[in-house]
Parts: sequence; structure tokens; C-alpha cells
Amino acid sequence: MPQFLDASDPGFEAAFSALLGMKREDSPDVDAVVAAIIADVRERGDAAVIELTARFDRMELVPERLAFSEAEIEAEIARVPADERAALELAAERIRAYHERQMPEDARWEDAAGASLGWRWGAIASAGLYVPGGLASYPSSVLMNAIPAKVAGVERLAVVCPTPGGVVNPLVLLAARIAGVDTIYRIGGAQAVAALAYGTETIRPVDKITGPGNAYVAAAKRRVFGRVGIDMIAGPSEILVIADGKTDPDWIALDLLSQAEHDESAQSILITPDAAFGQAVARAVEARLETLARREIAGASWRDYGAVIVTRDLEEAAALSDRVAPEHLELCVEDPEALAARIRHAGAIFLGAWTPEAIGDYVGGPNHVLPTARSARFSSGLSVMDFLKRTTLARMTPSALRAIGPAAERLAISESLEAHGLSVRARLDRLNEV
Amino acid sequence: MPQFLDASDPGFEAAFSALLGMKREDSPDVDAVVAAIIADVRERGDAAVIELTARFDRMELVPERLAFSEAEIEAEIARVPADERAALELAAERIRAYHERQMPEDARWEDAAGASLGWRWGAIASAGLYVPGGLASYPSSVLMNAIPAKVAGVERLAVVCPTPGGVVNPLVLLAARIAGVDTIYRIGGAQAVAALAYGTETIRPVDKITGPGNAYVAAAKRRVFGRVGIDMIAGPSEILVIADGKTDPDWIALDLLSQAEHDESAQSILITPDAAFGQAVARAVEARLETLARREIAGASWRDYGAVIVTRDLEEAAALSDRVAPEHLELCVEDPEALAARIRHAGAIFLGAWTPEAIGDYVGGPNHVLPTARSARFSSGLSVMDFLKRTTLARMTPSALRAIGPAAERLAISESLEAHGLSVRARLDRLNEV
Repeated sequence: MPQFLDASDPGFEAAFSALLGMKREDSPDVDAVVAAIIADVRERGDAAVIELTARFDRMELVPERLAFSEAEIEAEIARVPADERAALELAAERIRAYHERQMPEDARWEDAAGASLGWRWGAIASAGLYVPGGLASYPSSVLMNAIPAKVAGVERLAVVCPTPGGVVNPLVLLAARIAGVDTIYRIGGAQAVAALAYGTETIRPVDKITGPGNAYVAAAKRRVFGRVGIDMIAGPSEILVIADGKTDPDWIALDLLSQAEHDESAQSILITPDAAFGQAVARAVEARLETLARREIAGASWRDYGAVIVTRDLEEAAALSDRVAPEHLELCVEDPEALAARIRHAGAIFLGAWTPEAIGDYVGGPNHVLPTARSARFSSGLSVMDFLKRTTLARMTPSALRAIGPAAERLAISESLEAHGLSVRARLDRLNEV
Repeated sequence: MPQFLDASDPGFEAAFSALLGMKREDSPDVDAVVAAIIADVRERGDAAVIELTARFDRMELVPERLAFSEAEIEAEIARVPADERAALELAAERIRAYHERQMPEDARWEDAAGASLGWRWGAIASAGLYVPGGLASYPSSVLMNAIPAKVAGVERLAVVCPTPGGVVNPLVLLAARIAGVDTIYRIGGAQAVAALAYGTETIRPVDKITGPGNAYVAAAKRRVFGRVGIDMIAGPSEILVIADGKTDPDWIALDLLSQAEHDESAQSILITPDAAFGQAVARAVEARLETLARREIAGASWRDYGAVIVTRDLEEAAALSDRVAPEHLELCVEDPEALAARIRHAGAIFLGAWTPEAIGDYVGGPNHVLPTARSARFSSGLSVMDFLKRTTLARMTPSALRAIGPAAERLAISESLEAHGLSVRARLDRLNEV
């Protein structure tokens, strides 16, 4: 059974703080191992990648087989049934349409001093996408990472995906194909991240690496950050549902379980002003857990990290939700727009009972790569912006320099940066000569 | 003397690659020390911060003196001469005006399936700004970090700035005051970063930490990343000037020196199709170095990392510049706009000979916190966006769910995420009952 908390109980604040502070992930300290792997790949290139892949993935490769060939990709994706392909294509189309709207505008203007100012957006030239192998090898994540990159205008897009024991997920290859990925490497782990960051004889380095992975991948991304760009370091998934109790409890139970089934460390929280509804949802969860294929995982997550919180009203529910800053927030209430207006911190909001979170995982359009572990307080989900960068522009005229240059010179002198001041002064003096 | 390279020489590619690959910064491995400091601050709070400040900054503090009092701030800033104050206020006003234009728009629309989609931007609630003490304690950096935060709508803004031996820079306090900073703590180093990330009895934790610092500060920021947001990890400063040779060589020399004087690890590069002009600039640099206050620092930087590169034409200059992806790029040419259109990777572009880079450091308007060490390939300067986060929004109607729900269900089944599929199916079944 999950925790049941009542916000009007005297002990609530302590219990809620404990829930917020819960450490759900045991990050093993793999930093030394990862540092050695990265150094090895930098030094020995392909040979190191091949050796590490043999060791960790039980796969004997040669340089020519690091990447899937066109023929291999075609053969694999031919095995995908038509309805799965159609579903993937619908998802891709909707994700593309949403992300195309995110493209930011360039700007350029002249200000009162006569200075011309602005900025310009440009795409990152190349990106690498990490796709986990095995159980968490999700084709939907390929779409969610690759499509924003292509919409941004990234020209060269590589995927790395380990194939332990040679097992390939054809849907991952198809998703990469649909999204416009150029090269797919059958490698993973810290060695794949190192290869993407530094390049090898056969693997071209990229400018940015995104995508989820295990502790080794996360540590490797943290280490290569600076050499290349990275996205966030993702933690276990979370959902918070605020429900007014006017929905079928089974729907809410399934929504909670759809996070819980990801991972034993996932967290599902229901907040409702209707205590009886909270109990009904908990019963529905137990009933569903009896037959769910992933009942071991989902059951452990729900038991260890799940919570049902009863509040005085929806306003209090929104305030508590903001303290959680959930990755996914479902508002199963009569007026979800009004409640959403009260929410400040959430990665994604799903409005109303007809919007189960799972829609957002696949076909909604918004990205499903979202800030976890309360980081929605300060960060956003993946977007086109993650594959763009901004160059600022400034152009002074002689009269603009005359207007604002002396202040720059003054501040340079204050900061003991003489050459800074002189670079402005030399030009001002020329203007005064004229 | 700096390196002189000619792009038409047979050995050029090797020499240019070596220049690109030059390691300019010796990052000492302080990770273990920093980990211990962070653990200490988490465990012992104020007591640890005070002890570490006594040890590293030779400052005896008590909890009540961790923050500057209003009276102390007033007394310090009263010492600032009127012209310095006016220059700082002009800078603040121009930085504010530029960054106000960066505020992104919310979006909401209905798509063909009848789904309502969009996103909403919101400010991070609190931010902490690291300001180095001593020589690199720049009031302009306070403005460049704090103003975007305030424009974004950050409510609570703290500054940490060490005051070794009790030495305070009144201009830093004034800049913080002008920018709207709420609290200024006289602490620094990894202990200040830890205090901002985790909080102590008297220091409230913040959601994001920005600002430059030494190796300890950088290592601490890297460690607390995830717990809080951080900005980039800044490296030594760089400038690249492309000049057509029609400018006074002394101007270009001063522009190159205005980066070189920052730091012995700074890098200044001139690219020009006019070999004689390149020589003239180098002579002008030597002449200026004779009298420059920071001639030791600037001379070392110019000698060790400076370069003059002669190209066939401006087009080739632009291509080489893109391989450097410089933090600051000055285009001292007759038609800077045309040349800028050829540039893809640069943190900031300064257009034309009347726009010395130093203008951008202080009063131009654009941010001077910019991507270093070739990271302009994949990242941008500090902006209002760094203090905002996006929440995505999705709302399905019954008919929208009917249209796209089956594809979500199909993909959930493919990914063996049964509850995901059931959460959609339960709703679709209800629709079919009606």
C-alpha cells in the first residue's frame, strides 16, 4: 500500500517533506570506471569501442560493422507490421507539427542611441542520440529526441543503441529512419558517449549528445559536458494527478500505474480533496495490479513511492503539486484550465480526464523528455531550442559610440581593464579629431 | 610573438588544427576536495561555511554577518563616485532593454484532430549568482547575470561574493543594488555554491546558480547540477577579429589586447587577407604592450595563444572562424553584415570597426556571459531564457482521443507498457459505450 496523507493532519508537513526528500535512485559511483573508459576510447578509438562492446554487450564487432548498413536497416524494418508503422508515423507527424511551432524568431532593431542590436538563431551542426538497449529501448524516445533536432535544422544526426547479444529492436531502427537519423551505431554505454564526444577512426564526433541511459551513460554525459553539449541528466519518471473525484477511479489508477510500470523507482502521486475517491483509486490500483504484466515493477513503485494525499480543496492541491514540481501533471478536474493557471512548476500538464498521460508519451505532440526529480523548478522538457544556439549581434555607429562609449571606458577603468578602455578611447579620439 | 599562419601554406592545416586543439587551461583536479566541502556544508550548515571562510578567506564571521546588512551596503555604495554610478546605471538600463526583448511568447492552439496544445513560460523562483572576489570581481558581470534573472521574473536573487581579508568592492554591491539583488553574502568558493544549492540555517537555497568562478567553483557547480540548475562552465575568454585591413591597426591591436589582458589563458586571434596589415597589427600590439598596466598577463596570453592568420579572402576567413567558434567575433570590414551572414558559430558578433568588443562587455546591451572553448558550436550566451522554464500543455477532447488514442495504445503495446495502453483503452471503451 502507498502512503495515505491528509493535509489537515498535524503531522502532514513532516510526512510531506519526507515524501519530497525521498531518495528514489541509488546512483552507484561509477565515475572512476567511466573516466577510464573515456580515456581508453580517446586513446585507442575503434579498438577500445570494439573491445568494450565485446565485454559489456557480448558482441564481436569490426570497424565496418559499428554502424548498421542500409541493407540491415531495411531488412529489420521490413519486419515491422503495418499498423505499428502507421502508429509511429502518426506520432512522428504530430511531434513534428508541435515542435515546428517552437522555432524562435531572429530579432534586429535600432535603439535610441542609434546602435543596431539583435540576435540570430542557428542550428547545431551535428547531434548524437543515446537510445538504451533492452527493456527500455523505446522507439517513441527516438522520435522525441530526433525530431526536434531535425526541425531545428541539425544536418547530421547519429544514434547509438547497444544490441546486447545481437538483439535489435526493429522499431527503434524504423523510428530513426522516420525521424531522419543518418547513422545508427550498435554500441552503447560510456564507450558510445565517448565515441560521440571525441570521435574514433570510423565514428564522427558530434556537437551535442542527448537521450536517456543508465548510470554509466549519465556519468559519461556529465564528464563530456563542455566538450560537447548534453541535455538533462534524467532520473526516474514521475506522475502527479490532481483529481476532483468526478472521474472513474479506474482511469486514475491506470494513469498512476502507467508511470509506476516504468521502473521500481518511479513515483505516482494522487492529490484529491475527496478522501473516498482517494480510497477508491487505491483499491482500483490494487485490482489492476493483480493482472498487470509488469505488476512486480509497478507494485514495488506504488508500494515504496506512491502516495494518496487528501487536501481541503483544489487550491491546496495545486500548492502541494508546486512543491513536488512533477515531471507529468494530470489535472482530472472539471475546469482544468482554471487549475492549470494556479500551477507554476511542472514539466508537462495534461488537462482534463480525456488526456491520459500516455497520450503525451506517444502522440500528443509535446515532448516526452521532461525534467524529473523536482527539476521542473528550473528546467524544461526537450525542445527545438536544445538544438539551436543564439548569436548576439551589435553594431555601433560613430554617434552611438559617442553616446555610450564613455560609460564603457569608465567601467573598464573601474575594473582595471585598461586595454578595454583604450579600445573605446582610440575610436572616440578619432571622432573628436573630425 | 604570436603564431603567424598563412592559410595557403602546405603546413597550414596541421598548424591550424594544433591551434584549435590547444589546451589553454590547466584544470587542477579539485573534485575530491570539493566533494568533501559540499558534504560538510550539507551536514553542518552555517558552522561549516563559517569555518571554511575563515580558512580560505581569512575572515571570521558569525551567522548574522554572512549577509551584508542594509547599512553596510549603503555605506559601501556611498563611496562610489557619481560618474561611475552613472556609467553603471547606463549599462544596466541598456542591458535591461536588450533582455526585455528576449521574453518568449506563450502559445496555445487547436490542431486538426481537435487537440488543444501549447506551452507556457514561467520564471524560476529563486537564483543565486556567484561573483568572484579579488581581481576578477567585475560589477559588469553582476549586471549581466542579475538583470536577465529579474527581467525573467525571478523573485528572489542572492549574490555570493567572497571578500578575502575583508576587502569589498563597492561597485559590486552597487551593481547588485541597481540590478535588484535581494541578499548579498560575503562568502565564496565551493562552500558558497553548496550553501546556495542545499541551504543552511541562515542561507536559503536557490533553484539555479549562475556566474563564473575558479576551478573549485566550477567543480562545485558541476556537482550540484541536477539538484539545482547551473549555467555554463566558463573557460578563459577569447576574441577573434576578422579585418579587411582598412582600419587603424592600433584599434585592432587594442581589441586583441582587451581579451589578452583578462587572463594568461585568454586567446586573441586576428584573421585577415592582408598580410601587411597583419604584421602592422602585431607591431601595434608590441608597442601597446610596452605601457599596458597588465602587460605581463596580456603579453603571456598573446605570446602563448595569440595568432595572426592570413587568408586568401574574407570568405576563407569566415570558414576558419567557424572552426574556432569564437566567444567574441569582431568583423572589422567594410560590409560586416554580408560577412556576418557567412558566419555560423560565434557567441557574439561585433559588426564594423566602430564596435569594439569592449562595448559589448559593458554597455552594448547583449549579454557578455558567452560560450567559451568552442562551445558556441552548441550553446548560447546567458539570456532571459536561462531564468525561465517551459511547461507544455495538452488537452484532448473525446473526439481527439478517438482520433489519435488508438495509435498511442498500439505504441504502448509495442513498448510492453501495458498500463499506458490500458489508460487510453479504458477511455476509448467509454466513448464506444455512448
